[in-house]
Amino acid sequence: MIDTHTHLDTRGLEDLELMALTLEKVVTLAHDPFEMKTLDVWEVHLNKVLSEIKRGGKVGLDVYVCLGIHPRAIPPSVDEAIKLLEKYIKLDKVVAIGEIGLEKGDKKEEEAFIKQVEFANKVGYPIVVHTPRRNKEEITKKILELLQTFNLKVDVVIDHCNKEIINSVLDQGYYAGLTVQPGKLTADEALNLIKDNLDFSDKIMLNSDTSSNYSDVLAVPKTVLKMKLEGIDKEVIEKIAKKNAESFFKF
Amino acid sequence: MIDTHTHLDTRGLEDLELMALTLEKVVTLAHDPFEMKTLDVWEVHLNKVLSEIKRGGKVGLDVYVCLGIHPRAIPPSVDEAIKLLEKYIKLDKVVAIGEIGLEKGDKKEEEAFIKQVEFANKVGYPIVVHTPRRNKEEITKKILELLQTFNLKVDVVIDHCNKEIINSVLDQGYYAGLTVQPGKLTADEALNLIKDNLDFSDKIMLNSDTSSNYSDVLAVPKTVLKMKLEGIDKEVIEKIAKKNAESFFKF
Repeated sequence: MIDTHTHLDTRGLEDLELMALTLEKVVTLAHDPFEMKTLDVWEVHLNKVLSEIKRGGKVGLDVYVCLGIHPRAIPPSVDEAIKLLEKYIKLDKVVAIGEIGLEKGDKKEEEAFIKQVEFANKVGYPIVVHTPRRNKEEITKKILELLQTFNLKVDVVIDHCNKEIINSVLDQGYYAGLTVQPGKLTADEALNLIKDNLDFSDKIMLNSDTSSNYSDVLAVPKTVLKMKLEGIDKEVIEKIAKKNAESFFKF
Repeated sequence: MIDTHTHLDTRGLEDLELMALTLEKVVTLAHDPFEMKTLDVWEVHLNKVLSEIKRGGKVGLDVYVCLGIHPRAIPPSVDEAIKLLEKYIKLDKVVAIGEIGLEKGDKKEEEAFIKQVEFANKVGYPIVVHTPRRNKEEITKKILELLQTFNLKVDVVIDHCNKEIINSVLDQGYYAGLTVQPGKLTADEALNLIKDNLDFSDKIMLNSDTSSNYSDVLAVPKTVLKMKLEGIDKEVIEKIAKKNAESFFKF
């Protein structure tokens, strides 16, 4: 099983150990722990996220990393940040650009998002896209419209999907990330979304979005258990809990 | 009960909630989450530590803050950092300078430590002093020697005490912090140190040092339970688990 979206740097070692007991791989992403006042602050954050590879290793957790500019944590110069990103993505176990996306959807966020999609497309890295809690439908529509303007050669996952947005995401050929976390989806809601979209079982991935907020580090295995109890086909479970992530992140 | 030394910014909200169920107050301190490459990076860290007051508030946890330069996270200019500290310590719920101290005990660390003790003494804030795991006895000796050179008008707690250093700490009139955490003290070891030093029950405080490493957010209540089961005098327990912290931090 693979947890495709976490922020391990917000958590104690016990949580990483619990994940190591149940998960083959975990992906941890850049996010918004503080104001990215300068480029140095943002770079320090990238290094913090990268250091989770080593910390995970201590307890047997196989950690992979996505780096990028979160819409709630944009450093002063996006261009300079992307130049730095160009160096950092070459590091071992960095597998994608993320999480990027829109939160409020203003011009500044749009600029950072567009430039990063452009960059990811150029360097051939998959993209993990954040969608917000507020105005999710409206902001996701904007995200999908922006993505349409690119001739994308890389895979994209639209994360934190719910019933309002999952259809448009899957219909347009993107991966859909299901986040099982208090305030996002319950395991039962994720199960229902999976059952409603079995035709798209090649394009659904699971995650806990473990962060400093209430989270369930066992969200992925718990959702897998729900799928088993519901009698969902073994191969479908295998894809949603593991194979799709392997295809997407290429690890 | 009061947990006098934590790093809440390394932990999920569930841990803060668990603390709120068992503790009246928690003190969270500046530490070493990343390299303090620039003064801005350090300031971002101070703000992150301060933001735990609000996050704690969400789950009913009464959080107080200590700010300072950790010996493993010294920004480029200590003087500029202390100038910033002068502004930050005036903020609501900032109760002490810390954690400061020595790790390896080199000149750079000594300089940062001395300047901060000087500063704390000038502004009248108590000081929380870190002692390292390695060469604890030798480095603590150095810390105590440095402290002797000051005409101290403020209280000092020497934290992470073990059986090697607690006597010299208490004999010289400082508070002794007992950290119940894997790799530091077990609750039983803390209990024994308390029993061996009952004459100093006015000067002993408890903490969990909850951090990104293995920690027990319930370390203080668990140690209090051990004290109760051991039949330690109720007033002594009250002092060690609460009153001493109230005297020291003045909250």
